[in-house]
Amino acid sequence: MQAALNIIGDDLKLVEQQFRKDLQSDVPLIRKVGEYVLSSGGKRVRPALLLLAARLCGYTADKAVPLASVVEFIHTATLLHDDVVDSATLRRGLASANTLWGNEASVLVGDFLFSKSFSLMVGVGNLDILRVLSGATTVIAEGEVMQLLCTGELDLTEEQYTGVIRSKTAILMSAACEAGAILGSASQSQQQALANFGMDLGVAFQLMDDILDYVATEEEFGKSIGHDLEEGKITLPLIHTLRNCSASERTVIASVVELDEMSLDDFRAVSALVRQYGGIDYTVEKARFYMNSCKNHLDLFDNSPVRDALLSLAEYVVTRSK
Amino acid sequence: MQAALNIIGDDLKLVEQQFRKDLQSDVPLIRKVGEYVLSSGGKRVRPALLLLAARLCGYTADKAVPLASVVEFIHTATLLHDDVVDSATLRRGLASANTLWGNEASVLVGDFLFSKSFSLMVGVGNLDILRVLSGATTVIAEGEVMQLLCTGELDLTEEQYTGVIRSKTAILMSAACEAGAILGSASQSQQQALANFGMDLGVAFQLMDDILDYVATEEEFGKSIGHDLEEGKITLPLIHTLRNCSASERTVIASVVELDEMSLDDFRAVSALVRQYGGIDYTVEKARFYMNSCKNHLDLFDNSPVRDALLSLAEYVVTRSK
Repeated sequence: MQAALNIIGDDLKLVEQQFRKDLQSDVPLIRKVGEYVLSSGGKRVRPALLLLAARLCGYTADKAVPLASVVEFIHTATLLHDDVVDSATLRRGLASANTLWGNEASVLVGDFLFSKSFSLMVGVGNLDILRVLSGATTVIAEGEVMQLLCTGELDLTEEQYTGVIRSKTAILMSAACEAGAILGSASQSQQQALANFGMDLGVAFQLMDDILDYVATEEEFGKSIGHDLEEGKITLPLIHTLRNCSASERTVIASVVELDEMSLDDFRAVSALVRQYGGIDYTVEKARFYMNSCKNHLDLFDNSPVRDALLSLAEYVVTRSK
Repeated sequence: MQAALNIIGDDLKLVEQQFRKDLQSDVPLIRKVGEYVLSSGGKRVRPALLLLAARLCGYTADKAVPLASVVEFIHTATLLHDDVVDSATLRRGLASANTLWGNEASVLVGDFLFSKSFSLMVGVGNLDILRVLSGATTVIAEGEVMQLLCTGELDLTEEQYTGVIRSKTAILMSAACEAGAILGSASQSQQQALANFGMDLGVAFQLMDDILDYVATEEEFGKSIGHDLEEGKITLPLIHTLRNCSASERTVIASVVELDEMSLDDFRAVSALVRQYGGIDYTVEKARFYMNSCKNHLDLFDNSPVRDALLSLAEYVVTRSK
C-alpha cells in the first residue's frame, strides 16, 4: 500500500474531504449515518484503484478525486443495503448502521448515496464513465439478487458462484479501474486491460474474504466468524467440500445451513469438514490464480512506479490482514 | 384522461413494451417482481406527464418513450422501498411485493430498478435530463428520510410537512415535466413553468392521497384505511386538527399515534376528531389552491389540444377515483 500512498496519498486525502462535502444534506440523519459508515475503517480500495488507473493512463487533472469519491459512495450504499438483507449486526467490528438506526434508515440513506452518486457523476459530465458506472451498479443489484436466490443452495456450482461474485463484488473494482482509464483517454485495449485487472482482482479479493468466514476471529477481522454460513451463503470453501464429502457429511452440512441460528458447535462441525477436504487450500489456490491473471493484464503497460504501485495495491487488497 | 389518451395513447402502449424490454435480466426473480409491481394498477401518470410535456414543447422524436419508461421505473423502485420501510402488506389493493417475496428481494429489486433507470437515461445521452432526473432521485431519498424522522412528530408544522411531500412525491412529477420540456428544447422559462406545474400538481396529488387514509375504504381505493396513521405519519388533515383541538384531545391523538397496532376503534376516535375540526375540508382547500397554481403555470403556453390534455390529466390525477 505504501507505494500507492506515495503516489496518490494527497489525492486520497482530498477524497476524504470530498466525502464530507458530498454528504451535505438538509437532513442531518443522512450526514450522520453516511459519515458513520464512510468513516468506519474502509480501506478506500476502490478510490485508490480509480486514482492509480487514471495516473497510469497519464491523467492528472481534477476529475479523478470526485469520481473516486463517487465509487466509494456506491460501495457504501451497497454495504448499507447488504447489511439489511443479511440482518448483519456487525460491520468491520463495529455495530452495523441498521443496528444503530434501524433497517428503514439504512435502506433510505443507501438510496440517498446511490442517487447522490449519480448526481455527482453527471456533474463530471463524461457519458462513457456514466455508462460504465451505471452499468456496474445494475450488475451489482443483479448479483445481490442472485446471491439471495442461491441462499442455502447446496448444488451451487463453482461457475455459478464465480458469476455471483463477479457481479456483486468484482464489477465495481473493474468499473473503478475502467473509469480511471477513460479519464486518461486510454486506448480501447488499455481500458479493457484495466477493466479486466479490476475484475480478476475483485474475484481474488472476494475469494480471500470468503475464507475469512471460516478462519477469522472476530477480533482479527472485525467480521462475525461463521456469519456467511449462518446466513446460508454457500461460498467456494464449502462448494469444494460438498463436491468431495460423503453423503452423510453432506447431510450434516445441509442441516447446519438450514439453521436460523447456528451454535459454535454447529459451526465447528462444518468448519472441520471444510478443512478436512481442503476447502480453504483450494480457495486460496483459486485466489492465487485470479491474482496472477490480474497482474498479467498490466503487461500491456510499460514498467513504471505507477504500475508497480497498482500491482502492490492489488497484493495488499488480497492479503490485507496478514 | 381521455383527452390525454387521444394524444399519447399510442406512446403509452410503447412505454408498456419498453418496460418489458428494460426488465430483461439474467435473474428471473427481478423480472418477476418488477413485472408484478409495474403491472399492478399504476396509472402511468409520470410517463404521461413526460410525454405530454414533450409534445407541448413540440417534441415528437423517439427519446420520449424510453425516458417515460425510466420515470416509471424510478417511481416503482421508490414504491418497493417505501413498502419495506412502512411494513406495508397491501399496495393498490394487492399483496405488496415485500409480502410475497420478502423485504430482501424488495430492497434489491428496487436497487436494480434504480440502477437500470440510470443506465437507460445514460443511453438517451442528454446531460441536462440526467441532471434533472438524478437530482430528483436524490431529493426523493432525502424526502423519505425526512418523513421517517417526522414519524409520530405531533409538532410537525404545515410548512415542514409540505417540504416533505414536495421532496418525496412532487419532485418526480416535476422532473418528468421538466425532462419533457428539455427534450422539446423549450426556453428556460418554459422549462421552469413545466417544472413548477409538475411540482404543484404533485403537492395537490399527495394532499388528496393523504385524505384517502381517513375517508377511503379498502375496496374503493386499494389502500389500507388508517395505514398512515398506524405508521405514525402525521399528514395535513391531522396537523390541522392538532392545531385546533383541546389538550385532552391531543392526548387521545398522541396515544393512538404511538400504538404499534391500532384497532378500528382507535382509528375512529382520531378520525372523528379530524372531521370535527375540519381537517379534511382544510386539506381539500389546500389541494385546490395547489391545483389552481399548477394550472396557472401553463398560461405561458398557447392554448392547444396538448395543453388542454395536460390540464385534464392534472384534474384526473387529483380527483382520481371520483
